[in-house]
Amino acid sequence: MQIKEEAGTLLAEVRERSPLIHNITNYVTVNDCANAVLAIGASPIMADDINEAGEVASVSAALVINIGTLNHRTIDSMILAGKRANRAGVPVVLDPVGAGASVLRNETTEMLLGEVKFSVVRGNLSEIAFVAGMETETKGVDSAVKSRDGLDVLAAKKAAQRCGCVAAVTGEVDVITDGNRTVKIYNGHPMLSRVTGTGCMTTALTGAFAGAASQAGADYFTAAAAAVAAMGIAGEIAWERAGHLGTGSFRVALMDALSVMDEKTMKEMARFEEV
Amino acid sequence: MQIKEEAGTLLAEVRERSPLIHNITNYVTVNDCANAVLAIGASPIMADDINEAGEVASVSAALVINIGTLNHRTIDSMILAGKRANRAGVPVVLDPVGAGASVLRNETTEMLLGEVKFSVVRGNLSEIAFVAGMETETKGVDSAVKSRDGLDVLAAKKAAQRCGCVAAVTGEVDVITDGNRTVKIYNGHPMLSRVTGTGCMTTALTGAFAGAASQAGADYFTAAAAAVAAMGIAGEIAWERAGHLGTGSFRVALMDALSVMDEKTMKEMARFEEV
Amino acid sequence: MQIKEEAGTLLAEVRERSPLIHNITNYVTVNDCANAVLAIGASPIMADDINEAGEVASVSAALVINIGTLNHRTIDSMILAGKRANRAGVPVVLDPVGAGASVLRNETTEMLLGEVKFSVVRGNLSEIAFVAGMETETKGVDSAVKSRDGLDVLAAKKAAQRCGCVAAVTGEVDVITDGNRTVKIYNGHPMLSRVTGTGCMTTALTGAFAGAASQAGADYFTAAAAAVAAMGIAGEIAWERAGHLGTGSFRVALMDALSVMDEKTMKEMARFEEV
Repeated sequence: MQIKEEAGTLLAEVRERSPLIHNITNYVTVNDCANAVLAIGASPIMADDINEAGEVASVSAALVINIGTLNHRTIDSMILAGKRANRAGVPVVLDPVGAGASVLRNETTEMLLGEVKFSVVRGNLSEIAFVAGMETETKGVDSAVKSRDGLDVLAAKKAAQRCGCVAAVTGEVDVITDGNRTVKIYNGHPMLSRVTGTGCMTTALTGAFAGAASQAGADYFTAAAAAVAAMGIAGEIAWERAGHLGTGSFRVALMDALSVMDEKTMKEMARFEEV
Repeated sequence: MQIKEEAGTLLAEVRERSPLIHNITNYVTVNDCANAVLAIGASPIMADDINEAGEVASVSAALVINIGTLNHRTIDSMILAGKRANRAGVPVVLDPVGAGASVLRNETTEMLLGEVKFSVVRGNLSEIAFVAGMETETKGVDSAVKSRDGLDVLAAKKAAQRCGCVAAVTGEVDVITDGNRTVKIYNGHPMLSRVTGTGCMTTALTGAFAGAASQAGADYFTAAAAAVAAMGIAGEIAWERAGHLGTGSFRVALMDALSVMDEKTMKEMARFEEV
Repeated sequence: MQIKEEAGTLLAEVRERSPLIHNITNYVTVNDCANAVLAIGASPIMADDINEAGEVASVSAALVINIGTLNHRTIDSMILAGKRANRAGVPVVLDPVGAGASVLRNETTEMLLGEVKFSVVRGNLSEIAFVAGMETETKGVDSAVKSRDGLDVLAAKKAAQRCGCVAAVTGEVDVITDGNRTVKIYNGHPMLSRVTGTGCMTTALTGAFAGAASQAGADYFTAAAAAVAAMGIAGEIAWERAGHLGTGSFRVALMDALSVMDEKTMKEMARFEEV
């Protein structure tokens, strides 16, 4: 399948190019995100002060904005960095963590969507449904809306349409769409939801793949698909190796799997279905 | 023993109900706290901006306030969230990290105790002695006052009396009291003090158990006892499995043990002594 | 060799004295830094609010300032804490993370060097070259200037001269100098650069050794050499034990190795060359 080949090739590009990925993210999972970006072969930088966020964004290969622990200081930096990235042609990835869970998160998500042009938006079903403008209810930062057949595809398509970008809904089955092409990904393991930061890491990886895609002339649909598949495959490998021990060992094995993942593993293990 | 049965049953309730636990905590151990809450079966949310802290607290099952890395932005959020939780009947747990170590921590602890009604206060002996109004000296965020027989019980009782809540002193032997009932817990291992965040995680777990207790009609004395015992038991299991390797492996095994802990383990391994 | 003996002895002093190490650091690797300080036998405290940073610095054994995720709130705290530490005779260690990568980092580094007297400055070649006033280019927070023979020694010597302190350049080969004495360290493993925070942890360890040195009457040249060697040795041990598994397991093994490292290991494994 073409997307599988392309995702594998893009992984090789990430490792070859080691793109610099600028993250304005939350303080809960920031260390995991930095390590995930390093594990997949890219280079992370975290900078959220208004006095450097724009400068750093404009010289990076991609910018990742994650609203996991919002505050007013970083919201301004997100918008400034997003605009500067847009101007410099640097792809911007959004993780609207907990959108739907508080007025601040809702308003910030809306503001970001209004002010910044995103290349990829990734979230769970609740979050992407919010981005899509669908009625939803979020319980905390976890997905309240269960993945019902069809609802994830609908939300992803509506979000993609609204943002004019790639939308990725991750869940039991993942859905990636750019509005035209849509792919379902069947990788992953339920234990991924028992470790904090696996969603944030997937978004950070999306940044790494988008940065490489931008440099290599690939598209962001492939970048998002590759990132989501990489995390799903790593989850499967980690479960095999350490899942029986508990979530601590699983998390270590997850990072291990990302750090040794290569083109061959991606092409062999990725389970894409174009729909 | 009744407390042992109740603690085991409450653990099952946490796993069954998966209560949403709102944490306003420090940036040193926040990832560990989120993973500990997930490991024990609850659902964490971290939100400390003044514009969402109150809203999130009021819809959560419990609120945990940890003063490990204070700053003025979050102090205001702590007070607002605490008050909103109080109004909504949501239990609030306090970890006065480093109380006694700086004027800011002392004043903030006093302010929080004055403005917010807590359900449980948990700390080491230095911190709880400070809460109790006893003379003490704190060396950094570690306990300077050594656990002398009787002093921990005295501090816990005075703190419980002052706050009108459950007080938990953790140390070589842990003491939990609501002013009337008092229980000592003999679980744990010295290596727990060589990993950062084990205290913060215990408090986060207390939030998880308090949230389930609130929903299930159990009391906060049992919640605190169950949380402290859970961490102690996990410490023993982690030591057995990985202590000889070093603190890195011990920490991973600790999270593993929390993530697979069930009612049966709690009932078999908890070593309570009612005093 | 004398430096080897002294480094080993100083490690024993760290474990014996357990100095309190105050860290004003970034939120990406702060947990790793706290655990590294604990692993080597010292006691960490993180406090960055302007209302306690000075007080905490003045009662600590050492202060570590790391500019990894700068913002205006913490810059003021860094300067205040640095000055208070200077007045109290507490050694101050600087990690100019990403100096050269943004105007904010450059200006802050310059300001810190102007306002605070440091005992040790540690960074990669790009960062120390910036401190030395040499022309350089930094790519994000990673070293862009490759370790060319002689350039690292030159940068370290110039930085030491400018700051009147010990300068440490870490890389494939590490260089420590106080301007007069210079030592190269041949420990370490390339995988250290694939895990976030190994540089920050080395600086935090330098704080631990500097704190013990200050109390034990040793010098900061030895402190920096011991800290850098400790991380390098731990990297070798971690690679042997877990490197084949991936960066997740390597990172766990790294902390393990630090936590069990003793005087004997240091004296046997450290590869110093006085130049």
